[in-house]
Amino acid sequence: MAKKERKAIYLLQDGIGGRPRKDLGGKTELEAAETPNFDKLARKGICGIIDPIAPGIRVGTDVGHLALFGYNPLKVYDGRGPIEAAGIDFELKEGDLALRGNFATVNEDMVITDRRAGRIREGRDKLAESLDKMKLNDKITVYFRIATEHRAVVILRGDKFSSYITSVDPGAGNEGVKLPECKAKDSNFSIAKKTASLINEFTLKSYEILKKHPVNIQRIKQNKPPANIILTRGAGMEVRIKSIADKFNIRGACVAGESTILGIAKLAGFNTIYYPEFTANIDTDLYKKADAALEALKDNELVIIHTKGTDVTSHDNRPKDKINFIEKVDKMMGYIIDNIPDDFISYIALAGDHSTPCAMQIHTGDPVPVLIYGEDVLTDDVTSYGERACSKGGLHRITANQMLLCILDYINATYRFGA
Amino acid sequence: MAKKERKAIYLLQDGIGGRPRKDLGGKTELEAAETPNFDKLARKGICGIIDPIAPGIRVGTDVGHLALFGYNPLKVYDGRGPIEAAGIDFELKEGDLALRGNFATVNEDMVITDRRAGRIREGRDKLAESLDKMKLNDKITVYFRIATEHRAVVILRGDKFSSYITSVDPGAGNEGVKLPECKAKDSNFSIAKKTASLINEFTLKSYEILKKHPVNIQRIKQNKPPANIILTRGAGMEVRIKSIADKFNIRGACVAGESTILGIAKLAGFNTIYYPEFTANIDTDLYKKADAALEALKDNELVIIHTKGTDVTSHDNRPKDKINFIEKVDKMMGYIIDNIPDDFISYIALAGDHSTPCAMQIHTGDPVPVLIYGEDVLTDDVTSYGERACSKGGLHRITANQMLLCILDYINATYRFGA
Repeated sequence: MAKKERKAIYLLQDGIGGRPRKDLGGKTELEAAETPNFDKLARKGICGIIDPIAPGIRVGTDVGHLALFGYNPLKVYDGRGPIEAAGIDFELKEGDLALRGNFATVNEDMVITDRRAGRIREGRDKLAESLDKMKLNDKITVYFRIATEHRAVVILRGDKFSSYITSVDPGAGNEGVKLPECKAKDSNFSIAKKTASLINEFTLKSYEILKKHPVNIQRIKQNKPPANIILTRGAGMEVRIKSIADKFNIRGACVAGESTILGIAKLAGFNTIYYPEFTANIDTDLYKKADAALEALKDNELVIIHTKGTDVTSHDNRPKDKINFIEKVDKMMGYIIDNIPDDFISYIALAGDHSTPCAMQIHTGDPVPVLIYGEDVLTDDVTSYGERACSKGGLHRITANQMLLCILDYINATYRFGA
Repeated sequence: MAKKERKAIYLLQDGIGGRPRKDLGGKTELEAAETPNFDKLARKGICGIIDPIAPGIRVGTDVGHLALFGYNPLKVYDGRGPIEAAGIDFELKEGDLALRGNFATVNEDMVITDRRAGRIREGRDKLAESLDKMKLNDKITVYFRIATEHRAVVILRGDKFSSYITSVDPGAGNEGVKLPECKAKDSNFSIAKKTASLINEFTLKSYEILKKHPVNIQRIKQNKPPANIILTRGAGMEVRIKSIADKFNIRGACVAGESTILGIAKLAGFNTIYYPEFTANIDTDLYKKADAALEALKDNELVIIHTKGTDVTSHDNRPKDKINFIEKVDKMMGYIIDNIPDDFISYIALAGDHSTPCAMQIHTGDPVPVLIYGEDVLTDDVTSYGERACSKGGLHRITANQMLLCILDYINATYRFGA
C-alpha cells in the first residue's frame, strides 16, 4: 500500500501580534479574543514564536510574507512595486520600474488629508483609465493598474531607471503632512535623480487629472474624500525570486484577497485563488476562503490562506474590530477542522507576517505567535493561541523561514542536506 | 495631541553573569544577591538571555560592548587600541597604531608580579609624562596617554605598522609569568615583524624609564607595587564604525567611568557623561551616575549606564564583593525607578557585556541575563533577575545586537524594512 500523503493548511493572519493593553486587562487583542478553535490546535499542536527576519527588526507586509514563503528578504527584496505587479499579473519587462501606488486625498495646499482616499473601492477603474498610458518626458510611458481597494501599481517604461529613490507616500499615521517630494537616496546617483524627478512629474500630473475627474466630483458631493492624487512608494526593478514550489517539488496554492500576497505567491510558484469577495479587509468572505482552501487541498500539498483584517484594524487602532475579526477567523478555522478530508495526513499551521499592536498603529519588531497541529507533532504544554502562551512552546523562537521549513518537513517535502 | 515620546534607560553591568557556586548553595553571585528592584523589573518586564556574538563564544569588554551598541564585532573590530584612543579623545591619524596599555609590575627577573600595578591611581600623570613622545628607531614617535586606573593608551606614529601582532600583556590570571615577547602572528608578514620588534623596544624602554621614576621609588617605600613597565595588547589600526545614533536618528547618552565604554559610545555617536567620581570600580559614585542618567533622559531617547564593579570583583575572585556591588547597583536602580519622569513613556533594560564567573576569573561564553521593563512589553512568568530565571523568559535566547534592536523597537526608533 502506498504511503498516505501529507498535506498542510497554513493560515497567515496579517499583523496578528499585539502588545498588552490596559483596556483589555493587560491582554493583547489576540489574547482577549475567544478562539476555541485556535486553542484546540494549540493544545494538540506544537507552538512557538517567529521573527520575520530577526528579533527587533520591523518589516513591511511584503518582506514579512517573502520570509513566510521561505525567501531571505535581505537577498531577494528590491521594493514592493515588482511584487504588486506580479500580484495583478502585469508582466514586467527588463528595465521597467514598478511602484506601489495609493489613491489618496490632498487638499488645495497639497497637504495629505487621507493616505487611502477613504479606502476607495468604487470608480477606481475609471480613475485608473484616466492615468494609464500617461507620457512623461515624451519618451516614457506610465502603466497604471488598480490593485486591492485604494492600492494601485505604477509602472514606468521607456528609459533607464533606478529604484534608489524615496517614497512620496509618507507612510501610515502621517496624514497632515505636506506632499513629500521624491528624491534620490544618494544625490550622486544621476539615474536615481532623474527617476525621482520623473516620479514628481507623475505625482503632479496625477493630481491635475484626478482632481477634476467626474468620479471625484461625485465623491465630493457624497462627502467622501476625493481620490485626487497617487502616492507612490516601494520602487523596485527586478524580481530575483525562484519558485519555492519547484525547489521543494510541491504543489502549493494561496487563497488571498490582497495583491501583494498574491504577487509573492505567484513568484513563489503557487497557484493563486482569488475571488472579488476576498476583500483584504474585515468584510472578506471567510467561508468562501475556507471552501476554496479545502478544494485546493485536493490538488496541492500546501495551501496558504491569508487574512488581512487583523492588520487593517490595527493600523486604524480599532482593537474591538481586531478582536471581532480574529474570532470570525477562528470560526472559519473551526469549519476547516470539521471539513478537512481524512484521505491524507493533514497539518494545520498558524502564523502571521509581523505584529501590528493597535496602540502603535504600525508594524513592530515583536515576534509573532505560531503553531503547527498534526497527528505526529511534538506537542507541548501550551493550551491557547496567543503571544505569551505560544512563547512557551516547543518550537521556541525561530524565524519565518524556519517555520516554513518545519511545515515542509512535516508534509515530507524537504530534502536531506548530506548523504 | 502629539504622541508621547518613548525613552529608555539601559543598564549594562560588566561581567554580570556567573556560574553556580557551592559556597553560595548552588547559586550564582547574581542569584545570591538581594535585588528587589531588579526583581520588580523582571516581574513586570520581559526577560531573556543574550549572547554577545553566539553561544559559547568568549568576548572581551570591547567586543561585548560593540555588540551591545549594535555593531557586528566580526566586521568592525580591529583591536581594543583604537577604541581606547577614542575613549580618551585621542584622534588617530591614518596609519597610526593604537594599543591598550597596562601599568604593571615586574621583578628584577622580568617576571610579571602584578598586571595592574595594584590598580594604581595616584601619580599616573607623572609616569605618563616620562613616556610620552618617546622615540623608537629614530623616526617613530610614541604618544602615551593614561585612561582609567592602571589603563593607558599607546599610539605609534611615523611609519607603516601592522596590528597583526601578539599581546605583551599575558592576560587576567597570568601573573607569575616571564615578560612575554611581542611577535608577529604570522612570521611571513614583514611589517608585522617590524611592528612587533618596535613594541618590544617600547616595552623595555618603558621599564628603563619607569623603574627609576620618583613615583615608583615612593610606591616601593609605601609597600605598593611599582608601576615599572607598560604591558600592551589589543593593537589596532582603524576604526570602521559609523554612528548608530545617526543610523536610527536617536539622541543617545552613555554614563560610564571606563574609557573603553566611553570610546565605543563616542564612536557610536552617543553623548558621553563622565565625572572623576566614576571610577570603573566598586567605589564608583552610583547615585551620581543615576542622577546623570536621569538628567540625560531629558535630551536623549536612549541613556546607557555602565558599571564595572561586577567585572573587577569577578576577575579577582571576590564573590562577596561582587554580590555586595550588585546589591548597591540594585539600590541605584530603585532610585532611578522612583525618579524617572512620567512625561514620556519609559523603558528600563538590563544587560551586560559577558559573563565573568568569580571562580573562573575570566570572561566565559555563558549567556547574560537581560530584561526589558515598560508598560506595553509582553510580560512573562519570570519573577527575578538572574541567569536561570531569565533563561525562561519571553525574549528567549537572542544576541546582544538583537537586544538593542528590541529596545529601539520599543522606543519606536527602528525603521521598517519593506513597505
